[in-house]
Amino acid sequence: MNTLQEDQKRSRDSVSRALESGTLADVRRLIRVMEPGEVAHILESSPPRYRHVLWQLLEGSQEAEVLNELGEELKLDFLQSMGPDQVAQITEELDDDDVADILQQLPEAFTQQVLDEMDEQDRSRLERVMVYDEDTAGGLMNTDTISIRADVTLDVVLRFLRRHEEIPEMTDTLIVVSRDDHYIGLLPVRTLLVSDPGCSVRELMLTKRKPLHTDMPDSEVARLFERNDWVSAPVVDGDGLVVGRITIDDVVDVIREDGDHSFMSMAGLDEDDDTFAPAIKTARRRALWLGINLLTAFIASSVINMFQGTIEKVVALAVLMPIVASMGGIAGTQTLTVLVRALAVGQINRSNARWLISREFASAALNGVLWALVVAVAAALWFDDNTLGLVIALAIVINLITAGITGAVLPLLLQRLNIDPALAGGVVLTTVTDVVGFMSFLGLATVFYA
Amino acid sequence: MNTLQEDQKRSRDSVSRALESGTLADVRRLIRVMEPGEVAHILESSPPRYRHVLWQLLEGSQEAEVLNELGEELKLDFLQSMGPDQVAQITEELDDDDVADILQQLPEAFTQQVLDEMDEQDRSRLERVMVYDEDTAGGLMNTDTISIRADVTLDVVLRFLRRHEEIPEMTDTLIVVSRDDHYIGLLPVRTLLVSDPGCSVRELMLTKRKPLHTDMPDSEVARLFERNDWVSAPVVDGDGLVVGRITIDDVVDVIREDGDHSFMSMAGLDEDDDTFAPAIKTARRRALWLGINLLTAFIASSVINMFQGTIEKVVALAVLMPIVASMGGIAGTQTLTVLVRALAVGQINRSNARWLISREFASAALNGVLWALVVAVAAALWFDDNTLGLVIALAIVINLITAGITGAVLPLLLQRLNIDPALAGGVVLTTVTDVVGFMSFLGLATVFYA
Repeated sequence: MNTLQEDQKRSRDSVSRALESGTLADVRRLIRVMEPGEVAHILESSPPRYRHVLWQLLEGSQEAEVLNELGEELKLDFLQSMGPDQVAQITEELDDDDVADILQQLPEAFTQQVLDEMDEQDRSRLERVMVYDEDTAGGLMNTDTISIRADVTLDVVLRFLRRHEEIPEMTDTLIVVSRDDHYIGLLPVRTLLVSDPGCSVRELMLTKRKPLHTDMPDSEVARLFERNDWVSAPVVDGDGLVVGRITIDDVVDVIREDGDHSFMSMAGLDEDDDTFAPAIKTARRRALWLGINLLTAFIASSVINMFQGTIEKVVALAVLMPIVASMGGIAGTQTLTVLVRALAVGQINRSNARWLISREFASAALNGVLWALVVAVAAALWFDDNTLGLVIALAIVINLITAGITGAVLPLLLQRLNIDPALAGGVVLTTVTDVVGFMSFLGLATVFYA
Repeated sequence: MNTLQEDQKRSRDSVSRALESGTLADVRRLIRVMEPGEVAHILESSPPRYRHVLWQLLEGSQEAEVLNELGEELKLDFLQSMGPDQVAQITEELDDDDVADILQQLPEAFTQQVLDEMDEQDRSRLERVMVYDEDTAGGLMNTDTISIRADVTLDVVLRFLRRHEEIPEMTDTLIVVSRDDHYIGLLPVRTLLVSDPGCSVRELMLTKRKPLHTDMPDSEVARLFERNDWVSAPVVDGDGLVVGRITIDDVVDVIREDGDHSFMSMAGLDEDDDTFAPAIKTARRRALWLGINLLTAFIASSVINMFQGTIEKVVALAVLMPIVASMGGIAGTQTLTVLVRALAVGQINRSNARWLISREFASAALNGVLWALVVAVAAALWFDDNTLGLVIALAIVINLITAGITGAVLPLLLQRLNIDPALAGGVVLTTVTDVVGFMSFLGLATVFYA
């Protein structure tokens, strides 16, 4: 049988081949029948020179939807190559939240030009949504809600729905509001379909589910959707008025970005960056991170520099010192990773933070003693020098415990200072473990070999 | 206004305080009105000693749903503390895919005892689902589908639905099947609600959407849901028979786990691990990773060991050598991270892999030259030694280019060998950058200072 997977792989491969051989008519034919998400995926996975070729081959009606599925950087690249009138035209086919996101990221003067191209009604609706920060419930929500009154029967609701040409996608619940648009509850479509049409909305609606507030951070919204298995959720403003609704498709993007963010930040990268950016752009982007790490490496070097005399006497110290620093770095990174994840999913609070720190201390002490013994025996045998074994054992215990405590305390501290622990944590941590590693090992050696 | 966010935070804090002060009646009262996902979150964020207290306070009917929302490790901990009859009872309230997951992870003999406790019908339904691997579409799917025939009118469908007590959650589409259960298409509930009841299903159903095959890997399923904004998707077996359907709530978990997996694996951790595991368990789990990294550190040390004579002559080499190794490690990790992410989201194929490798080469060369110059000047001034500047500059260029190419080629190679690049990539990469870093720097120094 022809499964979806094989079909898609085959058509992606066909597009690649047709692009490489330059048979653009074939490419055009292939991508015109693809889902927008698939075309976006092909664009994202293409080296720069193929991208504009592909883009030119899209039908006008596809452009908006494909654009909407693209990663941030690439999306802006394409938008900035268009005129304000083209952008205004494309935005007509997108959801308000997506358009607001786009406009918030474009240069302000350009955004104003785009807004000027729109008709009065679209513009004022958009300006209402653009008030909200992109990373909040307000920034995530759509305004295409269907709301109903509590005092009507299901039969009335069914007839009301039938008067619509179309119901917004992901409508799993209808929002029940008061006469002045205050949130009252939700009527699941599932309930509507199985219940007696004579019942009233009031009898069947859910009132236990509270609405989301426009200010809620998007990662908190994502957690609520995950924990409660929602498909959509109503959003209210400060006065309790229903202003929109958030749907799972937008939440899925937040979840993916949150995961990517932690992962990419640990290497000083941005999750929005284009994977297939040209070499110069890539090099420029990564240069800063290398520079920062170079600074920390120089700090570590200056610690070693203090002990030149000792190293001259016992060269084996130079051979073994990277072991002490690297074990600390590895142990600390493990703790840091656990804490960054726990912070990201909201598991840390005042009452369990202290417990976690002492757990990390105990775990580091256990592994410190274990590996100190192993390294001590190996070092003593290798260089036939028991003092060396003792010195490295002590240094490893000291550095692993430092690493464990730093790895646990540092992200909590950075979070409180509003600094992203995933981004800054690793740099600070390895500076600490390098400095403490070299300092303890070479310092102890200076004492013991004096 | 009382927003959801404040409400939840307040009640979580109340639970923590009540637990700490030991007023269990309060805890019981608080958690009995919470959503299962919220209770699971509190359990996951609690140190071990509070967990069993909390668990005992749950009502029988809550247990199953809370259990289902727990992370893998904790879920198994609780299940293994129960008898087979209790487990069988709990599974009655869960979806088939979740029960199958649980049973696949429990010891085989225990699973058999649980199955023996079930009634014939439940058992045979479960055994059908347990055939599929947990990480495939078959393992993700539920069997609670609503299927309809193509040749009936919408009015018949509406009456058919009304005969149900309840429609499965996340039912945004009804599955249209032939007389012998072959997949034909989908009828969106949205269409059902707005269309003329006299129309036939055949006129309105979507046939463009292909079903998923039971064998499709779950990460591929997740990508399709993301790209196409699906809420649910039908699953067919090798014969094209509809066997179930996958819903977005389960897909969201896959997306979260995929993100966590890359992030945690880079530090040698498992995304299923319990954040609040006791110290001994934590230490044991991390010991292996430290051991593996110790081995690679010894390999790097043995490279340094070859150059003892040179270091004795020029101690500054010992001071500067960590810089060369660490710059390589950082640059390589950046490339590795980009590639691991690109592989995870399926962006890499034969035609763009070569382009990416050469891009990474070019980017590494650019940054290599830039930072080599900076370090050379700094080193030459610091130790008043131009030869040292030249040697470190060459070593940095060599090591950064090595890092760029290794960071790009290694994950592709590991993937082809079916080794997880996120887990193994970092260890292999830093071994390469350490060895090449020390070897080039100390080797060139041996030549230049000879």
